[in-house]
Parts: sequence; C-alpha cells; structure tokens
Amino acid sequence: MYFVKNEKVWSQPLCPVDWTVSDVVSYFTAAGFPEQAVAFRTQEIDGKSLLLMQRNDVLTGLSIRLGPALKIYERHVKVLQKTHFEDDDC
Amino acid sequence: MYFVKNEKVWSQPLCPVDWTVSDVVSYFTAAGFPEQAVAFRTQEIDGKSLLLMQRNDVLTGLSIRLGPALKIYERHVKVLQKTHFEDDDC
Amino acid sequence: MYFVKNEKVWSQPLCPVDWTVSDVVSYFTAAGFPEQAVAFRTQEIDGKSLLLMQRNDVLTGLSIRLGPALKIYERHVKVLQKTHFEDDDC
Amino acid sequence: MYFVKNEKVWSQPLCPVDWTVSDVVSYFTAAGFPEQAVAFRTQEIDGKSLLLMQRNDVLTGLSIRLGPALKIYERHVKVLQKTHFEDDDC
Amino acid sequence: MYFVKNEKVWSQPLCPVDWTVSDVVSYFTAAGFPEQAVAFRTQEIDGKSLLLMQRNDVLTGLSIRLGPALKIYERHVKVLQKTHFEDDDC
Repeated sequence: MYFVKNEKVWSQPLCPVDWTVSDVVSYFTAAGFPEQAVAFRTQEIDGKSLLLMQRNDVLTGLSIRLGPALKIYERHVKVLQKTHFEDDDC
Repeated sequence: MYFVKNEKVWSQPLCPVDWTVSDVVSYFTAAGFPEQAVAFRTQEIDGKSLLLMQRNDVLTGLSIRLGPALKIYERHVKVLQKTHFEDDDC
Repeated sequence: MYFVKNEKVWSQPLCPVDWTVSDVVSYFTAAGFPEQAVAFRTQEIDGKSLLLMQRNDVLTGLSIRLGPALKIYERHVKVLQKTHFEDDDC
Repeated sequence: MYFVKNEKVWSQPLCPVDWTVSDVVSYFTAAGFPEQAVAFRTQEIDGKSLLLMQRNDVLTGLSIRLGPALKIYERHVKVLQKTHFEDDDC
Repeated sequence: MYFVKNEKVWSQPLCPVDWTVSDVVSYFTAAGFPEQAVAFRTQEIDGKSLLLMQRNDVLTGLSIRLGPALKIYERHVKVLQKTHFEDDDC
C-alpha cells in the first residue's frame, strides 16, 4: 500500500491568501499550465496579489498567450477569488 | 451524383465548445479569413477559449489587422457565443 | 459648359456599408486626411468595418496621430454611423 | 510705466476651440509644462482636438510621463472643456 | 535614552498632497517597495499626482511588475486617497 503523504504538496497552505509566489507557480503548474505558471513568478504574484487580479490583468499583464489566459482567468483566478470571498474560513 | 460526405468536414464537432485549436483554425479559414486564422493557432485558442473572448480580445489580443478583426468578432465570435448560450443542445 | 460627370467620384457607392477599402481611403482623403487615409488601407477597413469602429479603435488601432484621430472619429466615423443606423435607405 | 501689450500673447484666441496647434503648445508651455507641450505638437492637437480629449488620451496617447500627464488632464484639459461647454460665449 | 528625532523622517509633510516626488519615493521605499519606488521618480509623481492615480495607471503606467503593482494600488494608493478625501485636516 501507498499511504505516504507527499510532504511537498501538503506544505502548500490551503488558503490562496497565504500562498507564496512559489505556491502560485505550483498551483498553475499542477492545474495544467506549466508554461504560463512561469509568468506568475516573473510578475512576482503571490496569493494576495492573485486575489486582486482582474480579467484584463491576466489577459494582458502576464504576457502569456490569449487562449490559456482566458481559461486561467475563468476557471482558476475567478474561482479562487469567489471561494475566498464567500468562504469565512479561508 | 455526388453524395460522398467530406470526412474532413464532418469530423469537426458541431458545438464550438468541443472544437480543438485546429477546428477553430479550420472554421475561420472556411469563413474567409485564412490569414487571420493562423493567429488563433498562435494564441492557442480552442473552442472553449473562443467562447470566452470579448470584443477587445479579438481586436487587440490576436495582432491581426483591425478591419478583418472587427468582422471576425461581429459576424463570427459574437454569433457563435450567442448560439452557444441560447441553444440547450450545444 | 462643363457637365461631364467625374466617373471616379460617381463610382463610389452612396452608402458606407457598400464601400470598398479604396472607397474608405478616398473618403478620408477627400475629407482632408490624406495622410491618415493610408492607415485605413493598411488595416483593411472597408465600409462594413468602418461602421463597426468604436472611438478607441480609431484612436489606438490605426497608429495615427491623436489630434487628427480625434477629429476623424468625432466628425466622420461617428456621423457616418449615426446616419447609417437612422437612415432606412442607407 | 510699462503698458505695451505683448503682441504675441494677445494674438492667441480667447476660446480654445479657435486655438491652432501652436496656441495649444504656447498654452501648456505657459502653464508650466514646456517639456510636455511638445507632445501636443507631435500629435497635432489643436483646440478642437483638445476639447475632444479624454483622460486616457492624455495619459497614454501623448507618450509623456504619468505625473505631469495627470495634472495636465485634471487642472487644464478638464477645466478648459468644462468652461467651453458651460460658457455660451466661448 | 534615545529621543533624537530623525530629521529626515520628520521633514516629510504629513499630508500626501504636500509630498514632493522625493517624499513619494521615500514613502514607497519605507513601505517595502524600494525597487518600485524608483518608478515614481521616473514618472515624476508627486503627492498631488499620486492622489489622482487610478488602478490602471498604477498597473500599466509605471512599468513595474504586476504583483507588487496590485499591492501598491490596493494597500497604499487607494488608502492614501481614501484618507485624503475623507479627512478634513489633510
């Protein structure tokens, strides 16, 4: 059996507001956008900044291709923000 | 008589949401914008991304000429989105 | 007496929606913007595209100087669009 | 005593709508923005164009530094426009 | 005991509206953004200009990285403006 927890994964804070820039990069790499994840490091975006991003910031401020940018905003940034502002625990 | 169906054409999914980047490129090539169609590949825009595009994304995010961009948005992107969100089957 | 009609001038369709890119270029040249008219050709803007242009498209999408751009939008593009959408015959 | 009127100053029309590009340049030079005044000439902005400028046009369309641009819009362009549209004589 | 006041610190006016460009630079350096503070000098932003800045001006007009820019606007520029316009004394 295989019950060993992955230390690396569990070390990432649950709430985006506590993510470091590296946590943000790990999140988008794991979400299927390894190439675009690099741009979040270049622009120094940690969890607090991520929660402040608007659609246009993702589309034009990261210098990433439009197709992935549209999905990153719609399926991830928007969703993380919605969860954050609705969830009292996070 | 000529009833042989074009395999290539029929292999494209009916609903834009299921289109690959290549399907998007084929669509705009067939719609009379072969030169601009290339930009959809460069920006990695599949059907799901296409349905998320706003006017300004088409006009400035694809780096294509303004005249064709205006028609691509008005006659195609907007229409495909309208159909998608109004049509229960697609 | 001089009644010979200028073939060139009369060959331009009355309604902007029917203008070719060359008709658009001729229009802005005659309107006093010969230098800026070239940009309409570069951006492949025919009458149909012209009727879809918004203020920001004229100001930033044509790469022309701001002063003439402001007048081109306010005195021409906006006026042609207003006439087009109000006038049943055109 | 010194009552000789400055021909140069008095030759500038009272109403901005009548200003040439040079009048606009003189206005902003006298207002304390000699460096930025040049940009109004480069962009061919006469009084009529000046009255059509919006905040974003001043901030990004003149290629001038942000600090002076914010003041030029807020203390001058906006004020000249307000006066123009409220004042029947001008 | 150590009661000597820091001349440098106390020389900065209390109200942002009175800050020089150097005061603005000192403020953002002390606030933890020494790298970005330089951009405020480059763009010649004094206290009066700072109070006129909008979100997009901070994000795209300073040519600084997106992550810090989002925090600079949200935690500082917005807060300084709110205080300024609500506080009668400042």
